[in-house]
Amino acid sequence: MGKKVVTFGEIMLRLATPGYSRFIQAERYEASYAGGEANVAASLANYGMNACFVTKLPSNDIGQACRGFLRKYGVNTEYIRMDGERLGTYYLETGASQRPSKVIYDRADSAVAKIIPGDIDWEAVFDGAELFHFTGITPAISDTAAEVTLEALKVAKRKGITVSCDFNYRKKLWSREKAKKVMSELMAYVDIGIGNEEDAEMVFGIQGAHTDVTAGQLDIDGYQQVAEELINRFDFKKSCHYVKGKLFGLGQWMVSTAL
Amino acid sequence: MGKKVVTFGEIMLRLATPGYSRFIQAERYEASYAGGEANVAASLANYGMNACFVTKLPSNDIGQACRGFLRKYGVNTEYIRMDGERLGTYYLETGASQRPSKVIYDRADSAVAKIIPGDIDWEAVFDGAELFHFTGITPAISDTAAEVTLEALKVAKRKGITVSCDFNYRKKLWSREKAKKVMSELMAYVDIGIGNEEDAEMVFGIQGAHTDVTAGQLDIDGYQQVAEELINRFDFKKSCHYVKGKLFGLGQWMVSTAL
Amino acid sequence: MGKKVVTFGEIMLRLATPGYSRFIQAERYEASYAGGEANVAASLANYGMNACFVTKLPSNDIGQACRGFLRKYGVNTEYIRMDGERLGTYYLETGASQRPSKVIYDRADSAVAKIIPGDIDWEAVFDGAELFHFTGITPAISDTAAEVTLEALKVAKRKGITVSCDFNYRKKLWSREKAKKVMSELMAYVDIGIGNEEDAEMVFGIQGAHTDVTAGQLDIDGYQQVAEELINRFDFKKSCHYVKGKLFGLGQWMVSTAL
Amino acid sequence: MGKKVVTFGEIMLRLATPGYSRFIQAERYEASYAGGEANVAASLANYGMNACFVTKLPSNDIGQACRGFLRKYGVNTEYIRMDGERLGTYYLETGASQRPSKVIYDRADSAVAKIIPGDIDWEAVFDGAELFHFTGITPAISDTAAEVTLEALKVAKRKGITVSCDFNYRKKLWSREKAKKVMSELMAYVDIGIGNEEDAEMVFGIQGAHTDVTAGQLDIDGYQQVAEELINRFDFKKSCHYVKGKLFGLGQWMVSTAL
Amino acid sequence: MGKKVVTFGEIMLRLATPGYSRFIQAERYEASYAGGEANVAASLANYGMNACFVTKLPSNDIGQACRGFLRKYGVNTEYIRMDGERLGTYYLETGASQRPSKVIYDRADSAVAKIIPGDIDWEAVFDGAELFHFTGITPAISDTAAEVTLEALKVAKRKGITVSCDFNYRKKLWSREKAKKVMSELMAYVDIGIGNEEDAEMVFGIQGAHTDVTAGQLDIDGYQQVAEELINRFDFKKSCHYVKGKLFGLGQWMVSTAL
Amino acid sequence: MGKKVVTFGEIMLRLATPGYSRFIQAERYEASYAGGEANVAASLANYGMNACFVTKLPSNDIGQACRGFLRKYGVNTEYIRMDGERLGTYYLETGASQRPSKVIYDRADSAVAKIIPGDIDWEAVFDGAELFHFTGITPAISDTAAEVTLEALKVAKRKGITVSCDFNYRKKLWSREKAKKVMSELMAYVDIGIGNEEDAEMVFGIQGAHTDVTAGQLDIDGYQQVAEELINRFDFKKSCHYVKGKLFGLGQWMVSTAL
Repeated sequence: MGKKVVTFGEIMLRLATPGYSRFIQAERYEASYAGGEANVAASLANYGMNACFVTKLPSNDIGQACRGFLRKYGVNTEYIRMDGERLGTYYLETGASQRPSKVIYDRADSAVAKIIPGDIDWEAVFDGAELFHFTGITPAISDTAAEVTLEALKVAKRKGITVSCDFNYRKKLWSREKAKKVMSELMAYVDIGIGNEEDAEMVFGIQGAHTDVTAGQLDIDGYQQVAEELINRFDFKKSCHYVKGKLFGLGQWMVSTAL
Repeated sequence: MGKKVVTFGEIMLRLATPGYSRFIQAERYEASYAGGEANVAASLANYGMNACFVTKLPSNDIGQACRGFLRKYGVNTEYIRMDGERLGTYYLETGASQRPSKVIYDRADSAVAKIIPGDIDWEAVFDGAELFHFTGITPAISDTAAEVTLEALKVAKRKGITVSCDFNYRKKLWSREKAKKVMSELMAYVDIGIGNEEDAEMVFGIQGAHTDVTAGQLDIDGYQQVAEELINRFDFKKSCHYVKGKLFGLGQWMVSTAL
Repeated sequence: MGKKVVTFGEIMLRLATPGYSRFIQAERYEASYAGGEANVAASLANYGMNACFVTKLPSNDIGQACRGFLRKYGVNTEYIRMDGERLGTYYLETGASQRPSKVIYDRADSAVAKIIPGDIDWEAVFDGAELFHFTGITPAISDTAAEVTLEALKVAKRKGITVSCDFNYRKKLWSREKAKKVMSELMAYVDIGIGNEEDAEMVFGIQGAHTDVTAGQLDIDGYQQVAEELINRFDFKKSCHYVKGKLFGLGQWMVSTAL
Repeated sequence: MGKKVVTFGEIMLRLATPGYSRFIQAERYEASYAGGEANVAASLANYGMNACFVTKLPSNDIGQACRGFLRKYGVNTEYIRMDGERLGTYYLETGASQRPSKVIYDRADSAVAKIIPGDIDWEAVFDGAELFHFTGITPAISDTAAEVTLEALKVAKRKGITVSCDFNYRKKLWSREKAKKVMSELMAYVDIGIGNEEDAEMVFGIQGAHTDVTAGQLDIDGYQQVAEELINRFDFKKSCHYVKGKLFGLGQWMVSTAL
Repeated sequence: MGKKVVTFGEIMLRLATPGYSRFIQAERYEASYAGGEANVAASLANYGMNACFVTKLPSNDIGQACRGFLRKYGVNTEYIRMDGERLGTYYLETGASQRPSKVIYDRADSAVAKIIPGDIDWEAVFDGAELFHFTGITPAISDTAAEVTLEALKVAKRKGITVSCDFNYRKKLWSREKAKKVMSELMAYVDIGIGNEEDAEMVFGIQGAHTDVTAGQLDIDGYQQVAEELINRFDFKKSCHYVKGKLFGLGQWMVSTAL
Repeated sequence: MGKKVVTFGEIMLRLATPGYSRFIQAERYEASYAGGEANVAASLANYGMNACFVTKLPSNDIGQACRGFLRKYGVNTEYIRMDGERLGTYYLETGASQRPSKVIYDRADSAVAKIIPGDIDWEAVFDGAELFHFTGITPAISDTAAEVTLEALKVAKRKGITVSCDFNYRKKLWSREKAKKVMSELMAYVDIGIGNEEDAEMVFGIQGAHTDVTAGQLDIDGYQQVAEELINRFDFKKSCHYVKGKLFGLGQWMVSTAL
């Protein structure tokens, strides 16, 4: 088996209406499971790595179905804690023509939102691992999820494991102020920072010169400058930026975010 | 349009695996909406009555889809309050041979569980109504749902509307003690009591003579006696009992509990 | 509830092959119900109005299923007459690449085609209504449907209700000559005329200057002129024209023609 | 290829709700094509015979799809006349538990109901054929369908072809009086009569002794007697009766009536 | 019935994942049957010809289902030999965006790959036929399939039937050397050659001037020249070429290669 | 993770028609993967064991999909060799009423049928294992599969691992004579024998007294006797027998043979 990598975050039941049908028309939902960190694990497993996804799932058949789904795609699920009440859920209606897609979240009080320090044996998780990857979604789920993220980072740091973080600011989950406070503390443990111009501005207040997101103006030099400022501020070894979906910068980890 | 009747309670999104497939096998879920009081309304609407179902639904597309579902079956939805966060959900796996069916509830913190007195304009709801029907599930959902049930009953009583209640004890939602306390208070407003031997014993501590539910022994005379004791204790005008699925007793309302 | 509006016409069972499959390949049909006036009612109901759709449906389960479908989308169905033999049907095969879509109608002798004056209590229908909308399809269905349209218009006029008409010429249902004769008589009751260059030419013989539909030449001034001629001839209060799918002109009613 | 046999009658589009769902719940219909005489042809084709089904189908894609369906099961469709407006349709809802199945017919004015003498080249159809089979449904469809049945029988008789008839009385299509009049005339050309006690009584007024269909009393001797009376009255060579689904009597043709 | 034409080749069970889903996601496969020569027969049958498809199918229900599929589309299947072990199969995953479609063949040892001279009564097959069409796929299936193709061609030639061949080089089935050897021998019997620049180069080593397939350069004059060289070398009466999907050249047979 | 157990055998793609539809009606197939030894592994994984299934799968997407299917159910797939041409397939049509189910196998030349000694690193497979389970199907697949079974047994024996075998005679795969010869040699390594009266008689020629399978006569004492004879002949530690689906005998391993 390949290199051991670890990702940590939330995975949700994704209930999508069939084809382009509206919520009111849906007599059935296509069911799968998705989450940024789980998707990264599935993608790395597909490339042959020992990709471990860490989360907390409800100890019922829905949690087990989710775990089976991850296993199918080769993800190592041995460190998932099966102990909680509910799995976060979201409903998806795919748009058509000028009608946009809609997402309705129902993720409050999920098992992973109620995770607490001590729930995961991080020593065992990181034993032999080379990389730990998380995103800005994980600490945004709940205060305790942020605490567990910090707990994981401290163990990873002590064990000398490379840490990557996709900033991924989610305004529905927390405010810019709280994001800045929590994320800045976590950055002390991060070696590779991944993000785009919105994340840099929303989370860390770093704005690229000659770049106006609202007006759709992008400046490559401005991005280089944002990357450098992030590297300087947080002592990143590497920093990656996405410009309109194209990877720009210094990253070496190719991560897929869709199963 | 026929007689105006009112039912009040919770309706949930019902996600059922296709055919007899297991949760772990399900790549899609059949979606419908169900709840004891909503089913009664749908059944009465089918018989031509102006059946009003009262509840609180989330003010999003899932809530609207639920409302549309009720309307399709002719239920009057004008008194439903669209204002809340989430719709209660349950997952169903149909059993086969010796494998039993499984139900997984995910109903905590639903919009109707967070209903508070004042949310519903009961004066308007009961204007012109002849019957108000609720079940023991409604006050079990949450303390505020119990308060709103009482609020409704007071208005119904004042307006001289006949009130029926299906005791329907749900042990997953509350204890026998709490059920007894809350339900006994509500019975003061009830004209027609509907239940079976388990409800009578679990909620009100009334046990039929010569009847042992665990041992499967049933005694018709015992049931008559239970009905009479209920009538005496709560001053019911009428009381209905179900014995092994067959209506036995004094009831005049034919209620269907399945769409 | 919002403003009361009334539409009148035919709704048909729409049987569509799945995806892009051909009729000969179809082992199942997607079933829904559609019709220009019903779609307008559904759209207005979606905007919160008390949208009443008037038609005649067969007094069997297919008619009831159609009525339930309308209710689901919030349409007020209380004035629909359930009394007839059959529901008009059409089969749809969606095209792909250079293969065009195909529609096969089977609508002769539908319940609404056999509607007769007196079937609908227009006094009740228009009680409190602000708008009556119909299309050129309705009087084209049958001679009696045209008579009932006239009957409705007379009541609407007497009650001072605004009347809108989408000319919507259907060559499969009647000749240009008959359309002109019938529609011209009905226009005396219409306040708002909606149409495109084809309708104006086919039904009323009004052709826009510098406009050649066959050659694909369109002239905005020509459209203005057609609108003015329609207003002059029929004393419309307003007239709307569609140019290549974009509304051009004087209309104030936003009507959607697709569920 | 095996023996040439000919059947003549109506085939309809069969639209069935999925599983046990109700009409009001159906968002799609399973589509197939069925008819007593077509089913017999399909069954005989399955046994290797050159089974020709004769009917009239609409000259559109629905008619062609129906023809393709028959061909798939090996039925010889070369004598089908493709020339008409519509295909008869019926809707089926499969019952469950105490809820019975429902069938809604929409078959008026089908292509085959409008068949007229001369539409079919019976000389060609019967060239080389050994058996002609029809049922009591075919002449019940319309007066002209009865005329064409007689036309076919005369040619078959002249060519010395064995003729079988399943009486199959359908009360929705004609009265007992009309059935008796028409069928009695056709019996002059029939060699093999197939039926049950209801057919014998409803169509020909022949009642078995000691048999009371309503009361569920059946008497084997009574059946023998009915068969003999039919043979005597119509000079059948053979007569078959079905008693509660089991073939009883003299028949030699094994016919399946379900694809 | 129209002109009798004959095609000969392999037809396979086509198992396609639903929509754009991946093989690993597929819980079901859409099943149909396809093959170049069968598709030509189906297309010609659709135009009213007596199109006979000749092949060898397994003598089991899968073979019979394949035969029924062909019949549905009007193909004459009377010359198909039902006698073999297995039907060739292929799995299809439709691509999306930058992800290409994938085809996985499982066609070794199919019934038609094991066909041997004498299996087909070519005298009967070609009786009354006007055209025989095959492709370069048929002789590539197996050595015996190539022998049977030659056997067919000799009979067709003797009977004066026009022969057309679509060269259709399949590198997964044979080498360029073997293709050249076998195909060159068969060309002696061919009147109409159909192909594109790749076939001409891969099978016969004929390259168009100023044409570089790899670089995407195409030259119409070069194609004319290739066609002429093919006509000269093999004494074709006619030769057709396809340039980027558009027919260019001398062909008179319109052949569709997709059902 | 629980005890390590190993099973070895063939897993096939199972293509089942939907519901009760016939092969000729099937426009799609439900796809799953099944095999006696894989099912045992899935069942034991469900009970929490480290259940390793060993086989050889094609090195294409179909093989990978099969591996993902096993992983979903928690089976350890790390010892599966991905290197071969095709996956065995079988088609299933579920019977209804008096129509029996049909199975059509297409399993010749599967990857596992072409397995050869050396393909599997049995030392690694059995490292830490407590049980090795196989069935009489595995050595019946091909001569080399039988050789590899023997190879596995020798390593298991040397490592002191308990071995169980379900005799499972498959007459379509080999003769009684060959089964007896091969299986008798393998029994030298087996500790636990599992079978029924048919297996004992067909494979080893051991018949229970007073038992006549054809006549449906069963005798419990006879079974005890068969078990004892098997134990004596092959020096089994334990022997299990199934009588009409109920486990009878000495077994301690509960094995499920259906996912």
